[in-house]
Amino acid sequence: MRFAVAQSGGPTAAINASLAGVYEAAMDIRRKLASEGSSEQIEIFGVLHGVQGLLDGRLIDLSAYLSDPMKLALLKKTPASALGSCRFRLPDPEKDDAKYRKLLEVLTEHRIDALLYIGGNDSMDTVAKLSAWLTKQGSSIRVIGVPKTIDNDLVGTDHTPGFGSAVKYLMTTVQEILRDCSVYQAQSVTIVEIMGRDAGWLTASTCLLRRNGEHSPHYIYLPEANFTVKQFLSDVREALKTNRSVVCAVSEGVSPPDADLFRSGVNDEFGHAYLSGIGKYLEKQVAKEIGCKVRSIELNIMQRCSAHIASYTDLLEAERCGIHAGWLAYSGMTGVMVSMQRNENAYNYEITYGEFPAAETANQIRKFPAEWITPEGNQVSDAAIRYYLPLIQGEVYPDMHNGMPVHFLFE
Amino acid sequence: MRFAVAQSGGPTAAINASLAGVYEAAMDIRRKLASEGSSEQIEIFGVLHGVQGLLDGRLIDLSAYLSDPMKLALLKKTPASALGSCRFRLPDPEKDDAKYRKLLEVLTEHRIDALLYIGGNDSMDTVAKLSAWLTKQGSSIRVIGVPKTIDNDLVGTDHTPGFGSAVKYLMTTVQEILRDCSVYQAQSVTIVEIMGRDAGWLTASTCLLRRNGEHSPHYIYLPEANFTVKQFLSDVREALKTNRSVVCAVSEGVSPPDADLFRSGVNDEFGHAYLSGIGKYLEKQVAKEIGCKVRSIELNIMQRCSAHIASYTDLLEAERCGIHAGWLAYSGMTGVMVSMQRNENAYNYEITYGEFPAAETANQIRKFPAEWITPEGNQVSDAAIRYYLPLIQGEVYPDMHNGMPVHFLFE
Repeated sequence: MRFAVAQSGGPTAAINASLAGVYEAAMDIRRKLASEGSSEQIEIFGVLHGVQGLLDGRLIDLSAYLSDPMKLALLKKTPASALGSCRFRLPDPEKDDAKYRKLLEVLTEHRIDALLYIGGNDSMDTVAKLSAWLTKQGSSIRVIGVPKTIDNDLVGTDHTPGFGSAVKYLMTTVQEILRDCSVYQAQSVTIVEIMGRDAGWLTASTCLLRRNGEHSPHYIYLPEANFTVKQFLSDVREALKTNRSVVCAVSEGVSPPDADLFRSGVNDEFGHAYLSGIGKYLEKQVAKEIGCKVRSIELNIMQRCSAHIASYTDLLEAERCGIHAGWLAYSGMTGVMVSMQRNENAYNYEITYGEFPAAETANQIRKFPAEWITPEGNQVSDAAIRYYLPLIQGEVYPDMHNGMPVHFLFE
Repeated sequence: MRFAVAQSGGPTAAINASLAGVYEAAMDIRRKLASEGSSEQIEIFGVLHGVQGLLDGRLIDLSAYLSDPMKLALLKKTPASALGSCRFRLPDPEKDDAKYRKLLEVLTEHRIDALLYIGGNDSMDTVAKLSAWLTKQGSSIRVIGVPKTIDNDLVGTDHTPGFGSAVKYLMTTVQEILRDCSVYQAQSVTIVEIMGRDAGWLTASTCLLRRNGEHSPHYIYLPEANFTVKQFLSDVREALKTNRSVVCAVSEGVSPPDADLFRSGVNDEFGHAYLSGIGKYLEKQVAKEIGCKVRSIELNIMQRCSAHIASYTDLLEAERCGIHAGWLAYSGMTGVMVSMQRNENAYNYEITYGEFPAAETANQIRKFPAEWITPEGNQVSDAAIRYYLPLIQGEVYPDMHNGMPVHFLFE
């Protein structure tokens, strides 16, 4: 059996742990077969730059890079997609199946039996479409999805690999920002703009800081709640009555109807609008309407690639999702995404690894639960803390050389 | 003898290590005197919010908070000024000595013999002016400066506490950004805007990544070199010929004569212009003139408060500067700043702690050496690596609780 594994969509701190997991599953299966006296060979290839690279037949033999356990360990701690990524959407095969035929040709040429695709909503669309088309053609090639996104917005899984490390980075950094912002006697407002185009999971996670005794962020604004600039300014004025340093966490995805000047107007390949600048926009509003010292901070791509303060729980789960995907493919399944289910009845945090139809995940958004948003729409309730807390437990620190982290590179 | 210690200016990851050092010096002196059978009492007070808080008599007894060794250890790892800070400039005493008289009154009232002031250029101006005025009044109260700034632009010292940790954060983060930016096949330009209003020390430090095998940043733009938007666009076009992902490190302090639209036009209390937006400005130029994918990243205040990836060397040196300041005060000196001198003849990195006239440091800027800038003005030579490398050695990771760092607070 020959596996191919690819990475897609935006990078995370955990996506390479999933890649390592898929490789480890292949090695496990190889050892299992050998111990059973089977003559079946197990090979595993990495596809460079996702489905786009697969169309060009860009495959590399992973064993050549990862058979050294030190390299494999380093890969797990390295941020961003080591194999490269793509943002690529397959067309409706009813209208145009040329790309599908090309993919089948490449997969057949390399005698691939299973394609494992690590990615988010858009990647699960690829998994769903390609697996369905291959099955329809009578091909036995399986396509399995491995969830990945810092946005935590995938349907069918308790949470997504990459999310926990992003939250841990956020908690660490926002807490440091709280220290920094409170040193002066003068009143100030700090606006922290946090990623999450369509769902507020990341922004809402800042409620976790309360668990460590912090009193801020004073307000948390999510795309799932109504948000107006007018209400924002009123909230800030209220908080300034009793606080020297007011800190607000704002999702990049909030869309105040009374402000639309901050949209960049540019769309990406999927028609998603590039959002940028709500923080800067609100900063200007505070300066103009309230007049106190104000600063906006965009945490930018550091939220998705800060492997140096990764969550051990997250990296471990990412790896286990990869391992599970390998075994699902070996068992003959196709068109599914690995899913994590939390055992809510267990005393301790417990995850069961299973599978979920990729077609039901594709192009859907799992929103932050409305019941965890306060009635005022500007804060998150303590109930969310119980959900978030297990995801950031444990630290993985980088291997260092010359005082700087060492990363794994396929080169 | 009674010490008072205060913090001033922008926060750093190491400024509390210096505060802890001053406290430790006081305890050392107390133990020394006790062992000698002296009846002299040593007390140490913290001043909240720098000289501004001193004017209001806001002193706290540090022993009440720091006699617990666990608390003292936690303080050293906590970012930003735990005592609070200020941005305050004393007037020329020839013109207006009211504030000086008030300070003498408060210091006398609390029977303070020595004021230790941890800060940057502006704070050394306070040290120089206040010590000179006190001496002129016949007062025996000493004023000693402890250097602190992530900008590394203080005259009279090899480098400044806080700088090494900022560099270590930068290396870690920029390296992660390099991974993140290189995952796609499409060409892209990434502009990383780095702090340093007047000197390029921080931005230039990104040359260190070459020591770990990185090929970027492709260009490093400093306030010390000529910089035009025209040359920048020409550089980027050149690099795009041979690179998929082009990364530029740009100091917030560069001032291209062919672009002045990005200035905010606002000045701070010292008349310094608030700089903001050169990265965003250059991003728009690339989008307009070159048309490829482009992103700008402002590392913002995370550069100065990221204690979670602090340099052990930096924190240790910050602490030792604080200790040295305590002993200088005890010895009767005034009007000096602690300085670090590097023994260039030593085989290994060696620092000697000494003192330097605060008046010669105040309001001066130590620029990044012209001889370390390449003739093209867009890159830093390997000679700088030898200077930077010792400053980022060793890691200090935070104490964790609930998966989040724990900070020390005076409360």
